[in-house]
Amino acid sequence: MAQKPGIPKGTRDFSPEEVAKRQYIFRIIKTNFERFGYQPIETPSFENAETLMGKYGEEGDRLIFKILNSGDFLDKIPVETLSDKNSRQITPLISEKALRYDLTVPFARYVVQHQNDIEFPFKRYQIQPVWRADRPQKGRFREFYQCDADVVGSKSLWQEVELVQLYDSVFSTLGLEGVTIKINNRKVLSGIAAVIGAGDKLIDFTVALDKLDKIGEEGVKKEMTEKGISAEAIEKLQPLFGFSGTIEEKLDQLGLLLAGSAEGLKGVDELRFICEKIAALGLDKSVLDLDVTLARGLNYYTGAIFEVAPPNGVSMGSIGGGGRYDDLTGIFGLKDMSGVGISFGLDRIYLVVEALGLFPAAVTATSKALFVNYGETEALYAMKAIMNLRKSGVRTELYPDNVKVGKQFQHADKRQIPFVVIVGDQEIKEGKFTLKNLATGHQDSVDFSQLEMMLTDEQ
Amino acid sequence: MAQKPGIPKGTRDFSPEEVAKRQYIFRIIKTNFERFGYQPIETPSFENAETLMGKYGEEGDRLIFKILNSGDFLDKIPVETLSDKNSRQITPLISEKALRYDLTVPFARYVVQHQNDIEFPFKRYQIQPVWRADRPQKGRFREFYQCDADVVGSKSLWQEVELVQLYDSVFSTLGLEGVTIKINNRKVLSGIAAVIGAGDKLIDFTVALDKLDKIGEEGVKKEMTEKGISAEAIEKLQPLFGFSGTIEEKLDQLGLLLAGSAEGLKGVDELRFICEKIAALGLDKSVLDLDVTLARGLNYYTGAIFEVAPPNGVSMGSIGGGGRYDDLTGIFGLKDMSGVGISFGLDRIYLVVEALGLFPAAVTATSKALFVNYGETEALYAMKAIMNLRKSGVRTELYPDNVKVGKQFQHADKRQIPFVVIVGDQEIKEGKFTLKNLATGHQDSVDFSQLEMMLTDEQ
Repeated sequence: MAQKPGIPKGTRDFSPEEVAKRQYIFRIIKTNFERFGYQPIETPSFENAETLMGKYGEEGDRLIFKILNSGDFLDKIPVETLSDKNSRQITPLISEKALRYDLTVPFARYVVQHQNDIEFPFKRYQIQPVWRADRPQKGRFREFYQCDADVVGSKSLWQEVELVQLYDSVFSTLGLEGVTIKINNRKVLSGIAAVIGAGDKLIDFTVALDKLDKIGEEGVKKEMTEKGISAEAIEKLQPLFGFSGTIEEKLDQLGLLLAGSAEGLKGVDELRFICEKIAALGLDKSVLDLDVTLARGLNYYTGAIFEVAPPNGVSMGSIGGGGRYDDLTGIFGLKDMSGVGISFGLDRIYLVVEALGLFPAAVTATSKALFVNYGETEALYAMKAIMNLRKSGVRTELYPDNVKVGKQFQHADKRQIPFVVIVGDQEIKEGKFTLKNLATGHQDSVDFSQLEMMLTDEQ
Repeated sequence: MAQKPGIPKGTRDFSPEEVAKRQYIFRIIKTNFERFGYQPIETPSFENAETLMGKYGEEGDRLIFKILNSGDFLDKIPVETLSDKNSRQITPLISEKALRYDLTVPFARYVVQHQNDIEFPFKRYQIQPVWRADRPQKGRFREFYQCDADVVGSKSLWQEVELVQLYDSVFSTLGLEGVTIKINNRKVLSGIAAVIGAGDKLIDFTVALDKLDKIGEEGVKKEMTEKGISAEAIEKLQPLFGFSGTIEEKLDQLGLLLAGSAEGLKGVDELRFICEKIAALGLDKSVLDLDVTLARGLNYYTGAIFEVAPPNGVSMGSIGGGGRYDDLTGIFGLKDMSGVGISFGLDRIYLVVEALGLFPAAVTATSKALFVNYGETEALYAMKAIMNLRKSGVRTELYPDNVKVGKQFQHADKRQIPFVVIVGDQEIKEGKFTLKNLATGHQDSVDFSQLEMMLTDEQ
């Protein structure tokens, strides 16, 4: 019996139009990555399970897709172990490989494994899918692309400057006006926690602070209280909620608040360096903003933290994020290798570009002309022209079957092919082609070189 | 303790140079697909297991990578079932999803699922990785890309003609001279089996014949004998081994041999149509050849069969293959949907292009110029120029740290960056840049517009 076709939840088929639009975004990201000196690498879709497990916290471990061993995978497992039915315990016994969960851990693994072949500082980009066994919901998928640019092997803050420019360059090329690139620094967060006397609760503190957008000032204070941060400490936070003014003014206020924390002041200095340079160099269509509540979940950030908000008026979460991590490759045995990087969220960027109507029409253009098929002789004559047009870069095709002309025109119309070329007895006798513009209905009798020119001009 | 990093056997990391070369081949394939009117689709990396299982034979089922269900996957399985330790029986109970094994079955599933949104005939291409739990060996991987172009919804032989042209166009663009596009027809094979009286042993017959290249005439005859094909039948095959001459001559000989088989003669007619049209239209750098021993393993071919051999002198298996299958979507409930398609074998094509030294140097070019970093003021001056160069499309970068100049030059050298731009006090004072060509040692003092021109010209 025939199966009713479907795909696993959280995954997607992409139609020609969707692929073309996605490719358009990928192309702009890639071109910018390369102009900024980043080089591409690719890593396998699945890694040894031990490479990934334990790198993303307990929640992450659960969300990693594991691949079942091949062959008789139960053979060597004692019956007693199986009888326990402890899935978590049995997983590593029957699954040695797991699907990539992000691009950062595989990148760290790559750097350590190939360290002798890499010239540092190493600027790499990577555009590949990742998989997460998350509960699917609107805008959250089990297979999605990440587009990452990272540099390892230098602590220079010029790299943070450049990453802000890179965000600006990509989003400006896409035509987005008023994207906000938010920046913060982990050292500032640590400093604040220290000066308010909550240094031992840094994680709880940052997790709560990170929710300011969602739950508001009172919500943040409530959560901090629940996590055991004292009322006195929370009181000292008050200036944070009232931060306003230019980036420079905010940095001055931060400097005062953090006067007692060497680490916090170092964070302020780093932020000042980056923001000053961006002010001097200017951005195209984006805006840089200092957001001292920005924490992002990831514990491995040690310096700059980035997050990108779409233009005002588009209701959507962040479309990019990143930061500096001072010791990512340490987990694989290579110490003191500082890295900094950013990621572009393809799916959300797609939705933003779509919502703002910014996909150029040419992106989804298909064939320029369909040659009508009137039979074997006519089709052969057409194919000679088609062959030469393709050599000149024109996308074109022959309707494969000699069916009613109306049906062939309808095909061109449904496919949004703008021109139809008619080749019958008369055209062959005269060595001509009848070119019909489907939008205007206008038609011309032309020779090959005119045909080529008209179809190329319009591209 | 730090883990020693590695990747699963049969998988690969790709370095920047390798990614660039692979992208070059992908780009040429994609551009040609689009000129020929094919449109891209993408399908999920994993499908529901039932979509894939049973579609590739027993061997195929074994080689499909299965994904372990998430959560407490053993929960609902009776202890008795587990105690049997029958891996094959338990697999479907703990694994609902499986990694894509090829692009053809997912394409068939896509066509059936989206049939109401598709305008037929549908010309689609798909360039995505597939996974097979095959024993890894030289040139055979567990993760590799397939690049497929197929048309569904028409039986027109013009499509076969066009697919031959498509092969020629891609390989000619890559610079390959003398690629052989071999063609045969399943109906001819059936006809031969019928006229020699081995019609009931068609599979054994074609499997043996397919090995002619590897085991020679005697080997083929021996295998056929072992499979129970009579000596008399094998005797009648003799003309096949002596086929020679032009395609036209071969077709005439085939016509005589198959005079008693209507199906066989239909196959000859189809081949004649395709070969005549290609003769009339001409190929660029490839050669079309009729190979009546070409069978390819796949049972679903019903008409044309294609296989592509690399140029003489390159020792390598086929670099492409394909054919017509009259009822692929039937397995998913959509009948009478004829399809024909070809596939490009990226990994082997890569090795051929590499062996023949045909990758253009520009493919692996990275940044055009590295700006030396002499400190904060100089770096800011440099970054202004870098920003504007990038806007003009020049790939360029700043060395991130103010370290010894020798080390910075060495970095440019190791990265094969051809130019270094020096910016010191003097240059800033004069509003100039010192551009040094690392290959010649020549250096110039230039203003920004000259710098831009020189770095753009050379691209």
